Amino acid sequence: MANIVRFDSRPVLNSPYFIEALPGIGNVGKIAGDFLADAFKAVKFVSIYSEDLPPQITTDEECVAHLVANELWYADIGGRDVVFLRGLSQGSTAEGQFALAQDVVSILLSLNVKRIITLGGYGTGKLVDQPRVLGAVSDAKLKPELTDYGVTFVPNEPQGGIIGAAGLLLGLGRVYGIDSCCLMGETSGYFNDYKSAQAVVGILVKMFAVSPDQKELQDKTAKFEELTAKVKETAADDGKYDSFSYIG
Amino acid sequence: MANIVRFDSRPVLNSPYFIEALPGIGNVGKIAGDFLADAFKAVKFVSIYSEDLPPQITTDEECVAHLVANELWYADIGGRDVVFLRGLSQGSTAEGQFALAQDVVSILLSLNVKRIITLGGYGTGKLVDQPRVLGAVSDAKLKPELTDYGVTFVPNEPQGGIIGAAGLLLGLGRVYGIDSCCLMGETSGYFNDYKSAQAVVGILVKMFAVSPDQKELQDKTAKFEELTAKVKETAADDGKYDSFSYIG
Amino acid sequence: MANIVRFDSRPVLNSPYFIEALPGIGNVGKIAGDFLADAFKAVKFVSIYSEDLPPQITTDEECVAHLVANELWYADIGGRDVVFLRGLSQGSTAEGQFALAQDVVSILLSLNVKRIITLGGYGTGKLVDQPRVLGAVSDAKLKPELTDYGVTFVPNEPQGGIIGAAGLLLGLGRVYGIDSCCLMGETSGYFNDYKSAQAVVGILVKMFAVSPDQKELQDKTAKFEELTAKVKETAADDGKYDSFSYIG
Amino acid sequence: MANIVRFDSRPVLNSPYFIEALPGIGNVGKIAGDFLADAFKAVKFVSIYSEDLPPQITTDEECVAHLVANELWYADIGGRDVVFLRGLSQGSTAEGQFALAQDVVSILLSLNVKRIITLGGYGTGKLVDQPRVLGAVSDAKLKPELTDYGVTFVPNEPQGGIIGAAGLLLGLGRVYGIDSCCLMGETSGYFNDYKSAQAVVGILVKMFAVSPDQKELQDKTAKFEELTAKVKETAADDGKYDSFSYIG
Repeated sequence: MANIVRFDSRPVLNSPYFIEALPGIGNVGKIAGDFLADAFKAVKFVSIYSEDLPPQITTDEECVAHLVANELWYADIGGRDVVFLRGLSQGSTAEGQFALAQDVVSILLSLNVKRIITLGGYGTGKLVDQPRVLGAVSDAKLKPELTDYGVTFVPNEPQGGIIGAAGLLLGLGRVYGIDSCCLMGETSGYFNDYKSAQAVVGILVKMFAVSPDQKELQDKTAKFEELTAKVKETAADDGKYDSFSYIG
Repeated sequence: MANIVRFDSRPVLNSPYFIEALPGIGNVGKIAGDFLADAFKAVKFVSIYSEDLPPQITTDEECVAHLVANELWYADIGGRDVVFLRGLSQGSTAEGQFALAQDVVSILLSLNVKRIITLGGYGTGKLVDQPRVLGAVSDAKLKPELTDYGVTFVPNEPQGGIIGAAGLLLGLGRVYGIDSCCLMGETSGYFNDYKSAQAVVGILVKMFAVSPDQKELQDKTAKFEELTAKVKETAADDGKYDSFSYIG
Repeated sequence: MANIVRFDSRPVLNSPYFIEALPGIGNVGKIAGDFLADAFKAVKFVSIYSEDLPPQITTDEECVAHLVANELWYADIGGRDVVFLRGLSQGSTAEGQFALAQDVVSILLSLNVKRIITLGGYGTGKLVDQPRVLGAVSDAKLKPELTDYGVTFVPNEPQGGIIGAAGLLLGLGRVYGIDSCCLMGETSGYFNDYKSAQAVVGILVKMFAVSPDQKELQDKTAKFEELTAKVKETAADDGKYDSFSYIG
Repeated sequence: MANIVRFDSRPVLNSPYFIEALPGIGNVGKIAGDFLADAFKAVKFVSIYSEDLPPQITTDEECVAHLVANELWYADIGGRDVVFLRGLSQGSTAEGQFALAQDVVSILLSLNVKRIITLGGYGTGKLVDQPRVLGAVSDAKLKPELTDYGVTFVPNEPQGGIIGAAGLLLGLGRVYGIDSCCLMGETSGYFNDYKSAQAVVGILVKMFAVSPDQKELQDKTAKFEELTAKVKETAADDGKYDSFSYIG
């Protein structure tokens, strides 16, 4: 059964960049991508419904039902058209993730996408004071530009590879000959990691040469730092903080 | 492998309403929908056989085999054509539920369906004295009419969303621009909840402005109330009744 | 990915009967079907390879590899063309069983099949002295003939329905309007149940009005009875024999 | 969702032999096949990306991303064109293995493949001093030639059949009438078994009548023998070595 791909509109985009911002480790990619999309007033234009997303609707404050979807939004960021991939869930199976990624790439090819940027967290399993943003690319020629923005490249990292949408869309980007990169903010993975997301945003604003108001994100980062400071204290007492689950 | 969709007949229906009545929490939707279908002498006209329904037949009192199916039935309810979705089982996988929902919606579109109504239980995990009927809609404009019938709308409820056929058909209804709603009777979820089902029937008879004989359903509700009263006594003794499984 | 359906030959068959004889409870259907196929020198003419059969080959005494398949064989039994479904394994998933059953039915329709007979075991969970053969049918009109042969019909039995190929092919037979029945030999399910299989063979030889040499099957039944007698003794000592696994 | 099959080039090959060298028991097939492919400077010409391979990229020392794939490489070995199947992973489900095998066979048929050779380990569960190479074939006529090269044929072995790509490609080879064989080096299965792989290489160099430099492989085999000697000592002390996991 194929996915259902519904266009709300058919915007004319000029060789857009693409940013993947689905949930993942520490929700780093989702937080960073959602921030940028919202800051530049992105507009939804595609919904992809899939048998491999949870068979479920959510309801809003008006009790209006929304079927779980992966969505494409577009925005103008500093004169550059950008398409975002957003949603509440990645595909729930390996097969579903592949099918969703193929549908997204197919749309991107039709839009003459110029660059694929996937966002994610680089799970360290421990609290990180100054999260770096690690990179992986479809072609080594992309490294100098990204290094200029502050991206760190560590040979053979991440050792376990990159899983899920961030990995698949980078990998398929390379298969189809599109310049592609993955930006991974270091994160403990224990919380919605606003600090790591802000580090990723720091790279993206340099790439697009824009200066959006980051006040709200900075406030959340400050609260996140308070939280992790408390966790560290507790951990210092206990000798561990492994049992914390995601909180935001 | 596509589902097998078999038409027994091709009734001419006039912008029908659709009622989903598959098994679910407390079997509220199935009991309410089956009551209405039987009361108005509904006739089966489609059987959908699927690899995602149990690979199984049931036998009747004549030892005649029936392959497990999801079925469409039609009836005239107070001058309005109505199509029911009935069956002994929902799809056994998320993928299967999606494929079945897509097949059903596809048939409904061909019938020029005017409204999708999905029925379900709203599990509370505890016994409910006066079950309300909660609603979710495809469009806020539907709320005043449903409120008039006695449906309660609680912002952002149900918090966990609506899963299975009741959620999918509401969500797909919205995707395809069909006025759609879900009616959920509050239920402990521990039994075949006739009382909650009767509350849902109470909404439906107002919507269709009909007065079917509800004697049999009322009798079952009375028995259900006896049963739950006993459970409450026992629970009062024990301090819990969590271990009860479905009984009808 | 569709199954691979390979024809070794295209025999001209005259409105054949079909007998399903795949492994199942007590292997009753497989033993009975294989006996009849071998007794009447059946010839293989179709192999169906499927992603839902184990991804495996077996090797024979010549070290020649055989990919696991579901196979169709044909034979002339008392002047009646008969097609057998044989193999070492049923589909390993519900989806796979459905896809295999659909492929088989599709071939049967092209052969103008006149009757579908599925064979199976009716698991009782305890040793049975005189196993009956229970029946289920696609149409009540088939019951008198089968009753004449010695088949027993018990209303609403088997209560749990009939699962796997025996149920699916009966159910699909009914969907496609083919006269179909399932013959189930009562069996403990603990062993390769030759006695139950012989009871099923007893029905089939009446249906086809043939008298094949049953010496070998009778010998195996005699050994089976010795075995179960010993089990009963042990069980009488222990008070249980639940832990026995399949042995042949 | 079909696999993505990407050709880097379309080499003109003359009735090539095919060698399957994916990971498996003791990685015997992968080590032997990779050795031969590298020794004869094989060139990659096809990548197959599949929803049934892990949804993952790996990164190299340049941080360049590689989507997990099954790949076809070609080489000239002693005047004979040879196609290799290589990769880091077999399909992660039975269905995926079947779909990948079908895609590979489809390409091989288009290349007019003359012989299919699948490589694997024959797991013994205990350390083997002088690993034999066991064979299975699509046709008994292939046995004399293989016996000449040193392959051992044991009737009905391996008893459990051959699973995964090595079994499927042999089995499908037979289905499509291609001369096919499987060469299995005996292995404990506990390590990357270079010694067993070298035994398999010993057969292949005779088949192709070539003498590649085996120094590096011999060194690894020597180290492997040191390692297993230590294991044996320890095992002699302990009375067991069952708990060793794969190390290389």
